[in-house]
Amino acid sequence: MEEALVATTPEKVAPNGSSCDWKTIAKERLDSLTKPVGSLGRLEEIAARMVCIQQREQPRCERKIAYVLAADHGVTEEKVSAYPKAVTEQMVRNFLANGAAINVLARRAGAEVVVVDVGVDADLEAHPQLVQKKIRRGTRNMTVEPAMSEAEIDAALDVGRSLLRELPLSKGQIIAVGEMGIGNTTAAAAITAVLTGRSVKEVTGLGTGISSEMLPHKQRVIERALRLHVLSSAGPLEILRKVGGLEIAAMTGMILAARDRGIAVVMDGFISTAAAALAYAIDPTVAAIIFAGHLSRERGHHLLLDYIGLDPILDLGMRLGEGTGAVLAMMVIEAALAVFNEMATFSSAGVSGPHA
Amino acid sequence: MEEALVATTPEKVAPNGSSCDWKTIAKERLDSLTKPVGSLGRLEEIAARMVCIQQREQPRCERKIAYVLAADHGVTEEKVSAYPKAVTEQMVRNFLANGAAINVLARRAGAEVVVVDVGVDADLEAHPQLVQKKIRRGTRNMTVEPAMSEAEIDAALDVGRSLLRELPLSKGQIIAVGEMGIGNTTAAAAITAVLTGRSVKEVTGLGTGISSEMLPHKQRVIERALRLHVLSSAGPLEILRKVGGLEIAAMTGMILAARDRGIAVVMDGFISTAAAALAYAIDPTVAAIIFAGHLSRERGHHLLLDYIGLDPILDLGMRLGEGTGAVLAMMVIEAALAVFNEMATFSSAGVSGPHA
Repeated sequence: MEEALVATTPEKVAPNGSSCDWKTIAKERLDSLTKPVGSLGRLEEIAARMVCIQQREQPRCERKIAYVLAADHGVTEEKVSAYPKAVTEQMVRNFLANGAAINVLARRAGAEVVVVDVGVDADLEAHPQLVQKKIRRGTRNMTVEPAMSEAEIDAALDVGRSLLRELPLSKGQIIAVGEMGIGNTTAAAAITAVLTGRSVKEVTGLGTGISSEMLPHKQRVIERALRLHVLSSAGPLEILRKVGGLEIAAMTGMILAARDRGIAVVMDGFISTAAAALAYAIDPTVAAIIFAGHLSRERGHHLLLDYIGLDPILDLGMRLGEGTGAVLAMMVIEAALAVFNEMATFSSAGVSGPHA
Repeated sequence: MEEALVATTPEKVAPNGSSCDWKTIAKERLDSLTKPVGSLGRLEEIAARMVCIQQREQPRCERKIAYVLAADHGVTEEKVSAYPKAVTEQMVRNFLANGAAINVLARRAGAEVVVVDVGVDADLEAHPQLVQKKIRRGTRNMTVEPAMSEAEIDAALDVGRSLLRELPLSKGQIIAVGEMGIGNTTAAAAITAVLTGRSVKEVTGLGTGISSEMLPHKQRVIERALRLHVLSSAGPLEILRKVGGLEIAAMTGMILAARDRGIAVVMDGFISTAAAALAYAIDPTVAAIIFAGHLSRERGHHLLLDYIGLDPILDLGMRLGEGTGAVLAMMVIEAALAVFNEMATFSSAGVSGPHA
């Protein structure tokens, strides 16, 4: 079902199924607009990519959704975070009360906020903005055992997939993928070390703001987990199951489903990009629908972006998560589409081109 | 008159007239919000700067104006541009018909576009969005004589000053400063070479898109102008008069007046930043009210930003001018203020702080 949108599109698709015709259509339109060729830089690249993703001549962001996937992490038992684990639940309540940074920024970007409980260690009451999909009250402690069982990772991947499957068929959707989970930079750093082959030191940062004295402890915790699980020749799903997180798995499932449905996805920071890197390891074609919203200040994020081959849209020194960088970038993406769809052409405006 | 807003403000100002109390107020508010300290990166810095500029606890962008200052350049006789001079007039008409990139992006940012004819070589009809302040039909050819007379530069500076003076007293204004003028990267490069002491080669780029074969010619034209005028010990106004432009002078006057009135100004690319650098050379305190909207792809822009000490908000490979980078950055500035004004605090949301 979720592949219907791409499969049944009656519009121009190159014979080999690639989107190269759409690229040409985008380039021709961009070069007809009243500006020197290429002078809008990445706005042009973004608009062209959206033409290819949405496979239409006037790509749009008619419905913007910021998903915030929340879950707890057993590895917090090892004291890897500056904040107590209870903050995951408290911040979920803050999201539902519209008080967090993601609420404010999504409002400005015109995006809905959908909070998904994939594994928060708390009982949460029903709320119109909350999707209750709790699989377990947090992962297991990865330094002792795999973070998830086989059944749990399958369920978590399916949470993300089903959220995208439930979206009504429409081309004008764009989603921001964010998260909340005390301890999840530890999981993301473990994933990054395995996927990129870099050392734990190179990929592990201060997270929510641990002291530089606590950092070596956090790195030792991750090294301990990686020694326990021996992931050097593991596939992406095994890495995810053993050192990942429930919200990370849900994001991975969401990105894979977005690829199937041809929906543009804007990643946020280190953790959501770790989920994207896993999705990319499973299916490299997901890179076509992913935008890197911003470059996080968290150490290791740039390595994940390099791994997928993405260039971040914004670089504002942010490191909050929640989807905040992704919804800010959505504003740039929508501005790029406005330029693409609304600018006058040289011929319509009677403007001369360059000297022959 | 234009200084009334700052002088009569009844709110907290440090005894020495500095804004350091406002900095403290901003920092305390930022650190009370439900996010790790500093985790919103440059959004926090931007919000804090706006508190200091507007001198109030809830800074806002209630009125956003994008000024596009347009004029022609005598140096186009030397064939320094990829486009014919007529494009200045044609693009002004495109601005007034709402077809240009600045119109589209300003609309998205919620900003008005005000086009100012400071010296377009054409007769333009009255239009509600056009301010007619033509001083001369373009500057003189800087390779032969000074670009402006003393009377002309005074008049051009005053165009910018008077536009800001005419704005009603209000704290919630923010302005984007953009321009249109075939040939004006040549003027901006000449200014940049003199102000920064860099070679013409280091500061002269492709402008609207001349070929790499034409670039050495453009550089030789600028070198010729600089040999004629001998500006190595000249002050900013003499530099501006001899190798600048009417629209550049108007932007310089506008920035100086914005400083006097405490209005935040967002610069665009190479040419508007050249105007800002001249304003900074005249009065270094202007740096307090200036935001660098983006880093232009035009060679030399980063040298001007370094000269003033500004860090650009966006880096999207743009090089169009018109104010396009500035209005995009306005969206980020307004998002920063939304976060600052609207987020919940740790105490109001019942969220725990970090471990003691």
